[in-house]
Amino acid sequence: MNPHYYGLILAGGRGTRFWPRSRKRSAKQVLNVVGDRSMIQATVERLAPVIPPERLWILTNEHLRGTILKQLPEIPRNQVLAEPEQRNTAPAIGLAAHILRSVDREAVMGVFPSDHAVSKPAAFRAVIRAAFKAAAAGNLMVVGIQPRWPETGYGYIEFPPGTRAGATGGPVAVHRFHEKPELAKATAYVEAGNFYWNSGMFFWRADVLLDEMRRHLPKTASVLAALPPFGARGFPAKLKEVFPLCDNISIDYAVLEKAAGVRGIPAGDFGWNDVGSWNAVYELLPRDGSGNVVGPDAVCLESHNNFVDAREKVVALLGVNDLIVVDTPDALLVASRDKAQQVGEILKLLEKRNRHDLL
Amino acid sequence: MNPHYYGLILAGGRGTRFWPRSRKRSAKQVLNVVGDRSMIQATVERLAPVIPPERLWILTNEHLRGTILKQLPEIPRNQVLAEPEQRNTAPAIGLAAHILRSVDREAVMGVFPSDHAVSKPAAFRAVIRAAFKAAAAGNLMVVGIQPRWPETGYGYIEFPPGTRAGATGGPVAVHRFHEKPELAKATAYVEAGNFYWNSGMFFWRADVLLDEMRRHLPKTASVLAALPPFGARGFPAKLKEVFPLCDNISIDYAVLEKAAGVRGIPAGDFGWNDVGSWNAVYELLPRDGSGNVVGPDAVCLESHNNFVDAREKVVALLGVNDLIVVDTPDALLVASRDKAQQVGEILKLLEKRNRHDLL
Repeated sequence: MNPHYYGLILAGGRGTRFWPRSRKRSAKQVLNVVGDRSMIQATVERLAPVIPPERLWILTNEHLRGTILKQLPEIPRNQVLAEPEQRNTAPAIGLAAHILRSVDREAVMGVFPSDHAVSKPAAFRAVIRAAFKAAAAGNLMVVGIQPRWPETGYGYIEFPPGTRAGATGGPVAVHRFHEKPELAKATAYVEAGNFYWNSGMFFWRADVLLDEMRRHLPKTASVLAALPPFGARGFPAKLKEVFPLCDNISIDYAVLEKAAGVRGIPAGDFGWNDVGSWNAVYELLPRDGSGNVVGPDAVCLESHNNFVDAREKVVALLGVNDLIVVDTPDALLVASRDKAQQVGEILKLLEKRNRHDLL
Repeated sequence: MNPHYYGLILAGGRGTRFWPRSRKRSAKQVLNVVGDRSMIQATVERLAPVIPPERLWILTNEHLRGTILKQLPEIPRNQVLAEPEQRNTAPAIGLAAHILRSVDREAVMGVFPSDHAVSKPAAFRAVIRAAFKAAAAGNLMVVGIQPRWPETGYGYIEFPPGTRAGATGGPVAVHRFHEKPELAKATAYVEAGNFYWNSGMFFWRADVLLDEMRRHLPKTASVLAALPPFGARGFPAKLKEVFPLCDNISIDYAVLEKAAGVRGIPAGDFGWNDVGSWNAVYELLPRDGSGNVVGPDAVCLESHNNFVDAREKVVALLGVNDLIVVDTPDALLVASRDKAQQVGEILKLLEKRNRHDLL
């Protein structure tokens, strides 16, 4: 293990699409929506052979920090930071780079989402080792994943024509980044072969990233540069004061799409899934003979391809198909599987009705 | 009010089709599935102007007797009887006739289901007054209800061709009783005009009914005749001993289809509904603009014609149609509305799995 490799896990998301299981204080990353550990516990475990917990840093929010500390006792408490205010990824990553550089002038940081699933962790680690290595050499690195279907919910990374998947071939120049496409475009991307899903993972030396931020996002860079050293007494108060002054922008827009010479790993299949909805959970888990994912206690009659998450009661399904049923003590969701992406709209309605107790 | 009019309310049913709200100890008749009173409370209230509570008798089972006593404090406790064993309607009605005749040699009894809904109680009472009057004169009386659709879930009473609905025209000879028909037959019945839904209500003098039972159901009649007088010390023990010897048969089969000269009231519409399933409850209650019956707290998005009964939580529906959702603390039902009649099959499965806690 290279002692200069650090991990930054971004865990500030709300995860509204997992309502009613997800709430402000129990967002997706701290829930065990697949498997018996939370998404962030699985993330830490998956990274451990490359980055030990003592070199992992977590950025989250005030609502979730307590739960994350409880779920991850192996991570030093002062490395689990709550952002003073919800900002996009650029300030968060910039802040972490600022801190890591003050901790270790040679720091190479990997940035990881906290709520993705990976079914082939060894293949995953081969990819991030390659990405770290190229980052240590001074590159801004991204990770593309060979698409398995024309997904319209992901961004795409365009590599040069003829690029072949593989972690070991070394970094490849990134041609362009593409936003979430329409289906026709996504289909063309998949057919072209040199378009890869953007995994949301980034690798770079902390000092290289700070240089790029000074160039492309000067306001945020100067705000962060003015912070006292991490660990100094005045740090938390000063951070609280100045963080809201940072640009509310993603690292993709702010830096990656502007910087020269961004490179990436065109990775093969490591069983990656961003688990973006209850339907994605359904797709990930093993089904019974009727296509149901319902747990052992459920009773199903003439019912097919349903997903049930109910931990405190027996659920009986009778003559229903393609439903998502999620039961919690104070709220119950019954949704069509193909509407799983719209669960967030329910929260908007609840907010209008002042049901903040359910958000 | 004729002081010889008595009411027998049959309240021994299990009501499995209202699971998970209905259980052994909370069958449909003691639930408020429509409105804010239980079905049996509504029944008693509806009858009160014709039969005061002190002349009402209730036959139920051991599981429900306590709840019924609590719900109906106005009925004398010793008039709420638990059958020693689940039998069909003939022994229950015979037992009640035996008791009522010992209480009042002129007793005329009306037999009423405990779990039907009636939206026009004044019209209902006009019908039962007419039925009581004809019964007091010595007739075995039934009540037919002019069908509003070709229902396959009800039995039918065939009156002579040309019979017109009306409570005031006096009793009409019954041609024949018909079992629950197939749809084609039911349609023909409705078109013919002289076929009426069998309401399950019966009226007769207690002594007349006992005579008929001696003729058509001699074993049960002699078992009941050997009972000591109601109120005698040995009555409960003797009842417990001999009741299981009675024939397990309905009064329809045992007596009505065999007796000569059965007559009936061909009643018009008094808003009768046997509320036989969750879907019947849906049909009875007022719907919102999207055809949903979901209560004020529910959140509905792109969802139509659903029924929700959830008293302790918010239910969100997203992109679903024609569902029944019934939530209780230990069990949740999600069913297609057109499968509402099959809810009982879920109970069979739960029984197989030894989930007696949920029955």
